[in-house]
Amino acid sequence: MSLDAILTRIDAQLPDAMDRLKDLLRIPSISTDPAFKQPTDKAADWLVADLQSLGIKAEKRPTTGHPMVVGHVDGPKGGTGPHLLFYGHYDVQPVDPLDLWKTDPFDPQIEDTPAGKVIRGRGASDDKGQLMTFVEACRAYKHVTGEMPCRITFFFEGEEESGSPSLIPFMKENAQELQADLALICDTSMVAPGVPSIASQLRGMMKDEFTIHGPRIDLHSGHYGGPALNPLREISRLIASFHDDTGRVAVDGFYDGVQEVPAELLRQWESCGFDEKEYLSSVGFTQAHGEEGYSTLVQQWARPTLEINGLWGGYQGAGTKTVIPAEAHCKLTCRLVDDMDPDALRVKIRKHVEDRLSPDARVTWNDDLDGSPAAKMNIDRPEFEAARQALSDEWNREAVFNAMGGSIPIAGFFKEILSLDSMLIGFAQEDDAIHSPNEKYNVESFHKGIRSWARVLDRLSR
Amino acid sequence: MSLDAILTRIDAQLPDAMDRLKDLLRIPSISTDPAFKQPTDKAADWLVADLQSLGIKAEKRPTTGHPMVVGHVDGPKGGTGPHLLFYGHYDVQPVDPLDLWKTDPFDPQIEDTPAGKVIRGRGASDDKGQLMTFVEACRAYKHVTGEMPCRITFFFEGEEESGSPSLIPFMKENAQELQADLALICDTSMVAPGVPSIASQLRGMMKDEFTIHGPRIDLHSGHYGGPALNPLREISRLIASFHDDTGRVAVDGFYDGVQEVPAELLRQWESCGFDEKEYLSSVGFTQAHGEEGYSTLVQQWARPTLEINGLWGGYQGAGTKTVIPAEAHCKLTCRLVDDMDPDALRVKIRKHVEDRLSPDARVTWNDDLDGSPAAKMNIDRPEFEAARQALSDEWNREAVFNAMGGSIPIAGFFKEILSLDSMLIGFAQEDDAIHSPNEKYNVESFHKGIRSWARVLDRLSR
Repeated sequence: MSLDAILTRIDAQLPDAMDRLKDLLRIPSISTDPAFKQPTDKAADWLVADLQSLGIKAEKRPTTGHPMVVGHVDGPKGGTGPHLLFYGHYDVQPVDPLDLWKTDPFDPQIEDTPAGKVIRGRGASDDKGQLMTFVEACRAYKHVTGEMPCRITFFFEGEEESGSPSLIPFMKENAQELQADLALICDTSMVAPGVPSIASQLRGMMKDEFTIHGPRIDLHSGHYGGPALNPLREISRLIASFHDDTGRVAVDGFYDGVQEVPAELLRQWESCGFDEKEYLSSVGFTQAHGEEGYSTLVQQWARPTLEINGLWGGYQGAGTKTVIPAEAHCKLTCRLVDDMDPDALRVKIRKHVEDRLSPDARVTWNDDLDGSPAAKMNIDRPEFEAARQALSDEWNREAVFNAMGGSIPIAGFFKEILSLDSMLIGFAQEDDAIHSPNEKYNVESFHKGIRSWARVLDRLSR
Repeated sequence: MSLDAILTRIDAQLPDAMDRLKDLLRIPSISTDPAFKQPTDKAADWLVADLQSLGIKAEKRPTTGHPMVVGHVDGPKGGTGPHLLFYGHYDVQPVDPLDLWKTDPFDPQIEDTPAGKVIRGRGASDDKGQLMTFVEACRAYKHVTGEMPCRITFFFEGEEESGSPSLIPFMKENAQELQADLALICDTSMVAPGVPSIASQLRGMMKDEFTIHGPRIDLHSGHYGGPALNPLREISRLIASFHDDTGRVAVDGFYDGVQEVPAELLRQWESCGFDEKEYLSSVGFTQAHGEEGYSTLVQQWARPTLEINGLWGGYQGAGTKTVIPAEAHCKLTCRLVDDMDPDALRVKIRKHVEDRLSPDARVTWNDDLDGSPAAKMNIDRPEFEAARQALSDEWNREAVFNAMGGSIPIAGFFKEILSLDSMLIGFAQEDDAIHSPNEKYNVESFHKGIRSWARVLDRLSR
């Protein structure tokens, strides 16, 4: 049976696959920094060449920013498998603060750790290592069977870490070319070490930012301290009013569209291996905060939030400045679930603030920030059950349909622009330190990730 | 009568006096900026030379920072006047933002304005112009009578705008030399244009700064948004708890030592010409904020405050960062009145915060910030009534004993270290833009200020 041969080939080829990944990791494709424009381009070239070496018609496609890599390959003549689109991104986060790295971020090293071998370097997990799990599975297929198991479109982006400015325009302009039956995305984590996970729902996001204006100019607190309205006190009072004493958001209508998690799904989640105590204590918490009556997992996966991400005003230097500043600033984001509408929510939050302003205080809003609704994957499609079985086979443990607290807008864009359902399977670990110094990817994630994709492709193509 | 001759001499010499002031204003003596060490020193030299030209034994006295200028001169043989110590400072504030200045801050210009002629330039009001009013009065005395009207010690500082680090050590080391009967300080404003004012009480100050620590590291709001304790929300809630709905400070024991303003003093204040509406509307307020039940003037002069001067944490750049930061920071100052004890107050405020911390939140305090109590001048001394009459004569309007919302620690230091009472008389206007771009001093303030000191010296020496 060819699956066994493919898995054997993957095992034998692991050292070579790791060498290839290290080659890609050596290219500092930091998309957000103009100084790294050339290496970012080079990473695209590297991928084009690698796909071409598998007989895939791949090319670099220009955008106004970093290029897309698009590749097409047919499956077996008369094959019955679906047409898959595989998405990943080849750009990486900046590496600062560099002095916190124990090794050169762009000189990847294999390292022994208590949890097994890891590949350490920027992008090892996010997303070069994950992207390559799929490519390596395809390579093994090609070697053993001479072809891909089904028709596949490869779609790699180079701007994911810098806001994807070219993504939507490119997808709209090339919607016909990017048609497929199902999108596969490898940019997510496993719920817990050794627990294969398919993300079934993602939270959405609504971003906003406001400035509270008080006096016309900065005031001296010796002259105006007392009779003056202080924007720093005003903004603190407003922020404090966003939540009640039980941690619930106190904005009128905030929970419109939110549903409780069905009991059956809740039972599944509770047995998925998530270690609440470890999750909290690893960042210094002795207990869950936030909304009373909801577990850490439910809060993270299925409850909406209103969080303050930035707050500033007045003097921040050494010592004291006796100033009552003219302005105070606040950045906030909401995580959205179920049917919450980001645009409607924005209106409610703004009304909440405006209704509570003191006389002589004024608020202005940043109108350049966007929002995206929560996404529920279409897990009733047969491909999801097939993938779940494939992953369970590989990891000797029932794969779970988990939810995710984060937002991966690409799944929403695929649905919106290409009418394409997405399946998110990833092998990253919570401790991979993505976006942080000393990023790593477990060699087990890489190895079993490649094997997992081989099994998924096998199941989907039957 | 020699006073008339002296006043006549002052009038005749005004253009020369203004030229001298302009000379001094051309020296950029910015004490806080090491790049201006040399010019700051040069301003001290300028003053030493000017005092020496009046027959005063003046010298520059080194400190670990900028030098002091100390001068001594005797009065008439057998004179009955007091021994006065006159304090001023020759350093100035930085000039940034420079692009908001309409003229070069160190190329002083005489300008016509709707409110009369002004001298525009950094330090024109704070404090070079004010300091020179006294020196010019002495010059006229010297010219007309050949001597000073009484024994005078001149004491000029060059670090007032940078925290006066050398002041207390210098005063302690030279306490004997700086003995006098009364200190005169010219670094304050008039209550309203044309209303001569003697400051009878100053608010004290207590400075503090704290950091709220939440998670061990910055968190991703996709992963931890919900179960995490957010230090930005925590600090907002704590700041909001400092005041109740009526604007009163809600810290337990905050008002210990505060007295109500006596009815008689209140009546005097109410007739001192302070224009509440203009005072508020000039900075964009339609009403007084702060403590209910107290007028703007009483809030500013005789009520304590707790104000936030700086607040920051999380992301302040463009766009959005989905961070739950590990820390949030707050700088605060309290203005103190009557018998409030800054050290006891610090303990109460810290307890207020610590009592209200959420589980898993931690607070740390900056222990490098100081405090000073409020100061009440000893207005029962006969010199105060004498000065009040002298000022009333010059301005053709009853001089007032006003209070001040700001804190001028030097008066407290004179009392504490030299057992010396202070009398604060100043001719600055509220709109002089001290510490701001386009600082100015009214020519009338300068001219009538000189004449005022001549009259005060005359009265005190009788």
